Amino acid sequence: MRMVEVGAKEKTERVAVATARVRMAPATLAKLRKTKGKAKKGNVLEAARLAAIMATKRTPDIVPLCHPIAITGVDASVEPVTVGVEIRVEVRTVDRTGVEMEALMGASAAALTVYDMLKGEDRGMVIEKVQLEHKSGGRSGTWNR
Amino acid sequence: MRMVEVGAKEKTERVAVATARVRMAPATLAKLRKTKGKAKKGNVLEAARLAAIMATKRTPDIVPLCHPIAITGVDASVEPVTVGVEIRVEVRTVDRTGVEMEALMGASAAALTVYDMLKGEDRGMVIEKVQLEHKSGGRSGTWNR
Amino acid sequence: MRMVEVGAKEKTERVAVATARVRMAPATLAKLRKTKGKAKKGNVLEAARLAAIMATKRTPDIVPLCHPIAITGVDASVEPVTVGVEIRVEVRTVDRTGVEMEALMGASAAALTVYDMLKGEDRGMVIEKVQLEHKSGGRSGTWNR
Amino acid sequence: MRMVEVGAKEKTERVAVATARVRMAPATLAKLRKTKGKAKKGNVLEAARLAAIMATKRTPDIVPLCHPIAITGVDASVEPVTVGVEIRVEVRTVDRTGVEMEALMGASAAALTVYDMLKGEDRGMVIEKVQLEHKSGGRSGTWNR
Amino acid sequence: MRMVEVGAKEKTERVAVATARVRMAPATLAKLRKTKGKAKKGNVLEAARLAAIMATKRTPDIVPLCHPIAITGVDASVEPVTVGVEIRVEVRTVDRTGVEMEALMGASAAALTVYDMLKGEDRGMVIEKVQLEHKSGGRSGTWNR
Amino acid sequence: MRMVEVGAKEKTERVAVATARVRMAPATLAKLRKTKGKAKKGNVLEAARLAAIMATKRTPDIVPLCHPIAITGVDASVEPVTVGVEIRVEVRTVDRTGVEMEALMGASAAALTVYDMLKGEDRGMVIEKVQLEHKSGGRSGTWNR
Repeated sequence: MRMVEVGAKEKTERVAVATARVRMAPATLAKLRKTKGKAKKGNVLEAARLAAIMATKRTPDIVPLCHPIAITGVDASVEPVTVGVEIRVEVRTVDRTGVEMEALMGASAAALTVYDMLKGEDRGMVIEKVQLEHKSGGRSGTWNR
Repeated sequence: MRMVEVGAKEKTERVAVATARVRMAPATLAKLRKTKGKAKKGNVLEAARLAAIMATKRTPDIVPLCHPIAITGVDASVEPVTVGVEIRVEVRTVDRTGVEMEALMGASAAALTVYDMLKGEDRGMVIEKVQLEHKSGGRSGTWNR
Repeated sequence: MRMVEVGAKEKTERVAVATARVRMAPATLAKLRKTKGKAKKGNVLEAARLAAIMATKRTPDIVPLCHPIAITGVDASVEPVTVGVEIRVEVRTVDRTGVEMEALMGASAAALTVYDMLKGEDRGMVIEKVQLEHKSGGRSGTWNR
Repeated sequence: MRMVEVGAKEKTERVAVATARVRMAPATLAKLRKTKGKAKKGNVLEAARLAAIMATKRTPDIVPLCHPIAITGVDASVEPVTVGVEIRVEVRTVDRTGVEMEALMGASAAALTVYDMLKGEDRGMVIEKVQLEHKSGGRSGTWNR
Repeated sequence: MRMVEVGAKEKTERVAVATARVRMAPATLAKLRKTKGKAKKGNVLEAARLAAIMATKRTPDIVPLCHPIAITGVDASVEPVTVGVEIRVEVRTVDRTGVEMEALMGASAAALTVYDMLKGEDRGMVIEKVQLEHKSGGRSGTWNR
Repeated sequence: MRMVEVGAKEKTERVAVATARVRMAPATLAKLRKTKGKAKKGNVLEAARLAAIMATKRTPDIVPLCHPIAITGVDASVEPVTVGVEIRVEVRTVDRTGVEMEALMGASAAALTVYDMLKGEDRGMVIEKVQLEHKSGGRSGTWNR
């Protein structure tokens, strides 16, 4: 088992963007929109954004073979869309390896937080399309979905 | 903002089962099957199972309003299926609140681990259907998808 | 060195309330009020509330001799007052030892978060009056400041 | 919500010093002095120093929008003074952003540890003056209280 | 992969004692004795004791299949002996599963801390005899080495 | 108490190799060999390898005065030998301080994991010879046992 050696790679600017979606019942979504995110436990959208950012920093604790990375910035948006809530997390670094996992971890954490705060009303919600949208920097260059 | 008070709830046996799927390119899946999970970094399926179990224990660190819970047992399976890899995580406790989030967290962590270990070959993989399949125990009783 | 043995104590309902204050320059406070907490990094008050709740769960990681505790609920409020921002964190459990440290940890974390999000404008802010206001439950009974 | 991008900032030597004070009843302080810090749970002053250092490393876990930072050194002192215990934490790095929050987090953790180890005798202790004393390095230069 | 189900086991008082030894060069030991543990970085013996206690709480983060456990008490001693430093960690709980791993984790952490604080002088130190000495409580009853 | 300042040291390639051994009863070892590591809880050898890698990343959380380090790679092997299981962990970085503690932490975690997964059958197992085998890079140069 190994955490792949990256010591010989150059430190370059790297960006990764991941998205995820929480599909929910129309009634759950309608209520979320009406209350502007305020649920019994607090503001769902704000909590999910913060959870995304905090989770990017915990990526190497959760994903076993991820390198610890010096994240230089994170933007997280969590907004209601037609079928539920859409999450977008952008992570940036200047390091020897990319931040795809950090972005995906952040998006997953935001989705789990949305689920947690609304599950009392709608246990059937589904987290879907947790996916990389873009990465740039590093030897493998730019990739877009 | 609040972590909902559960002190008055009874400690009962509770179970939750969550699943997730990592959809991947046919070539990626074929190789995974052929090598029985052995990728450059190590055994993908074993690593994902362990990641699932370890992540269930970190749920309150990642999902902001989750209660710390005395998990009594976890089973994690990660297996190749027709379109990629299917993950199933079952979490059990005897506590005042359920383990739905723990099961979903475990399934997410396993999916992220699969992605991490195969992303060198297939960045387009998508994590989908992260969802609760079953819960039982507690005031709200049994729920099945 | 020891973590004091509490195995012989009874599991009882316990509550602790702690407060803290971030004293800031009038201009910083005026801006915080005017923007309803929205600073460059995001919503200061919401972030501090969430930080408080999450930190209560990390107390045994930060305070060396604290027992791990099954927190059953947390309420966190962070509001502007005359001289800055006032924080109040209430933690509840049904366990063998109290949650004073958890409440104080939460209040400290919220105060640090307020400082972090506004420090670009006002490095002179001071965290003060981090103190227990109330505890009840357990052998030593009720205590009020 | 965002963790502010610092990727374009230069890596420079940065220092931050924070202090805090635990005000306590004269009898509590007298006993602390008399026993040279040895309380029922162990050495209060040594435990608080170590807690300070360890907590500086956990800052990004507790303060939501803090960057992970490569701390290069920490000094922690915890000493009895006229009204209680005075804490001073100095943190150094060579990185893209400052270590003010790390120093303040360390000081808070030391103060909480002092409180925890003496609370059996004096629940009324107050943590006060958690404040930055000095920072240097980086674009905004030197700041002294 | 599984974390074995313990939900059906009874909550009983359980104790585990583990020991470990750091064997070191006579000169290193002589100096440690002479300085009463005070090395360049601080007090070796105090730091190791605290590290032991704190590590017992992190056991489920480090040992993948360990259950999270409500530790009720820990005693840690770290003392110079004929060939180096002897560590003894006793952990107690009232829970469904034993605390052997917690005691062994604490002993290991203390040993690593001793190594870390003295390694500048003696890289050849060896951690040995990390072993369970005693356990009691639970279905399998008492065991002594 | 201090975390020694390393800001003035150069960032260089550094490697450390640590080993550890879990001595076990012949019957335990025979069964481990026969089942190729598959115990009741899962694959012992795979779990121990992964535990080693994950633990290297947690070193500064467990060893109080360790610096946070940007690990660039880890290799972990865990194999049956004549008297039990032999563990070897190699950690690499390009940083200001060495990774000896990371390698020793990884080896300890793997040993604890082996113990945990086999302790139902053999509580008398002993972790021994947790030791540095090699380090290179940095001011103090190369060291071999």
